[in-house]
Amino acid sequence: MSDTPKPTQIHELGEFGLIKRLTKDFESVNESTILGVGDDAAIIRYDQKSVLVSTDLLIEYIHFDLAYVPLKHLGYKAVVVNLSDICAMNAFPQQITVSLGLSSSFPVEAIEELYEGIKLACKIYGVDLVGGDTTSSRTGLMISVTAMGSAEADKISRRNGAKVGDYVCVTGDFGAAYLGLQILEREKQVWKDNPEMKPQLDGYSYLVERQLKPEARKDVIRLFAEAGVVPNAMIDVSDGLSSDLMHICKQSGVGARLFEENIPINKQAHQVAMEEFKISPTTCALSGGEDYELLFCLSEEDFKKVDEKLDIKLVGRIVDESEGMKLFDPKGQSFDLVAQGWNHF
Amino acid sequence: MSDTPKPTQIHELGEFGLIKRLTKDFESVNESTILGVGDDAAIIRYDQKSVLVSTDLLIEYIHFDLAYVPLKHLGYKAVVVNLSDICAMNAFPQQITVSLGLSSSFPVEAIEELYEGIKLACKIYGVDLVGGDTTSSRTGLMISVTAMGSAEADKISRRNGAKVGDYVCVTGDFGAAYLGLQILEREKQVWKDNPEMKPQLDGYSYLVERQLKPEARKDVIRLFAEAGVVPNAMIDVSDGLSSDLMHICKQSGVGARLFEENIPINKQAHQVAMEEFKISPTTCALSGGEDYELLFCLSEEDFKKVDEKLDIKLVGRIVDESEGMKLFDPKGQSFDLVAQGWNHF
Repeated sequence: MSDTPKPTQIHELGEFGLIKRLTKDFESVNESTILGVGDDAAIIRYDQKSVLVSTDLLIEYIHFDLAYVPLKHLGYKAVVVNLSDICAMNAFPQQITVSLGLSSSFPVEAIEELYEGIKLACKIYGVDLVGGDTTSSRTGLMISVTAMGSAEADKISRRNGAKVGDYVCVTGDFGAAYLGLQILEREKQVWKDNPEMKPQLDGYSYLVERQLKPEARKDVIRLFAEAGVVPNAMIDVSDGLSSDLMHICKQSGVGARLFEENIPINKQAHQVAMEEFKISPTTCALSGGEDYELLFCLSEEDFKKVDEKLDIKLVGRIVDESEGMKLFDPKGQSFDLVAQGWNHF
Repeated sequence: MSDTPKPTQIHELGEFGLIKRLTKDFESVNESTILGVGDDAAIIRYDQKSVLVSTDLLIEYIHFDLAYVPLKHLGYKAVVVNLSDICAMNAFPQQITVSLGLSSSFPVEAIEELYEGIKLACKIYGVDLVGGDTTSSRTGLMISVTAMGSAEADKISRRNGAKVGDYVCVTGDFGAAYLGLQILEREKQVWKDNPEMKPQLDGYSYLVERQLKPEARKDVIRLFAEAGVVPNAMIDVSDGLSSDLMHICKQSGVGARLFEENIPINKQAHQVAMEEFKISPTTCALSGGEDYELLFCLSEEDFKKVDEKLDIKLVGRIVDESEGMKLFDPKGQSFDLVAQGWNHF
């Protein structure tokens, strides 16, 4: 008998009322967070540690499509991709700020859904929301997240420390997030052509989840700390294995060999790439992007320390710069690797 | 004989090429900046000091109108409004990150102009650009800036420390930025109705400059430090004197008396408000906003320490919460102050 409650309009709460409502359930868990939302600036205290800062801007129609991205997932992902950058420095994320540009017609309940995802990411990763800005946008939704973390200065992994002879390792698997996006785009097209059709996502759950709900590998950073290992170089894979390995090689002044058969690719990803999209699973792994796994270089000694403790894969070796960056197929044939990251322009 | 050079399109450079071109002239000046742009995250080191973090999102058509805001000024202002938040904590701004959402049709030369303003603000305020994100936007320009600064923990001024008996003081003057905006909007309308007409900005230079090129009062923070004074409470005036004083009163659990005749209003602002817009200059000062001056509460003792060293005005007193927030006119009549800040929704 009950009617669906009428959506609350933003102007009913006003900017301050909205912020209060959205942030009321956030509680700080880190000692380093002295003051969160509610003053001109947040106050943080890291004592002797270094501060790591990273920021990303996500824009509707460019980075996400609300036709198939649930708002809660969007909030979660917007936070996680930033935490992933902090982890990629071998540091622990601790605080975020979140700025939103919202159409005034966006109901408060929808913003709350987005915040549910932000809150979940904060909870899972032990991160505090300490500030932000909420403003109107004439066209579409935009989310700007800045993440901060800390590390002891000598524990930080940059992109520029890879050494000839290093083992090139990765966590997780590659290409699935890219294929998940292709599936979502395909089903959206089917639905646009015939709104009676329901999207068919059965059998693609792994791929879709990798696209919609990526994770930052904080677990791996914790295991590095426990094992006393600091990767010589590290990056998180957002543009694709090839492009991101190239960043390490360029900044370290080295070359690399990647062994195709060692690149971890999920079974579902392999099958969907081959059978449905008729593309090479390796190409998806090299150029797909959005995996948010870690790509890092370890000395032989460090590799031995973590190989059995961590679920990592050895995918290549660092070689002299003069050898370039090459992919070796199972027959031993080699191909030059090219950067084919995303270019939104 | 020379032709105007053809504007460079963003896709000719690509995302990495664009970032490289935009950030090439930025050099870090602060010891606390260990690593700027070019890795997954920036590395900062503050040692024993507290970190202050603030962020703002500026969106075209909502916060600025490129019909009359020059890009260089926009870049400058986007940085300064964030630095102002750090100063309002009685802290020194040191780093910023800048994320841009740009239409792909925006020529590189225009983005460079925007960056000229960002660079100028960095130079004037001794701040380092340490990161950001540059991405495409389907509609309009957006700028998200996060500023970081540092202070010793016991030197930070929050909004919640005002005490009964405190002197309420301000820097600079109020209402001019608001009136500058009204002038610019009026001239835009004239120009829209008749594109032959040139905008008439002669005689409004102070107002227009206050709107287009605000400054953060880092000079005042430095003088506080030299005098060994820490305001009991402080805020920067972005929403208007009334609204921002209300933030202090609410968070400190106090009331305030504001003396109308003491509120500093520039002569040009006074005249334009009265003669051209037929509005009360006091209303412009109380509710206009965007002045980016500091509003702060000092004990009598601290007031005496800085009164002669600083160009500050005593505009009121902090009283018991039960007295509320009142404006006293020159005849001694009192009026309840109301918050009338900006609401973009």
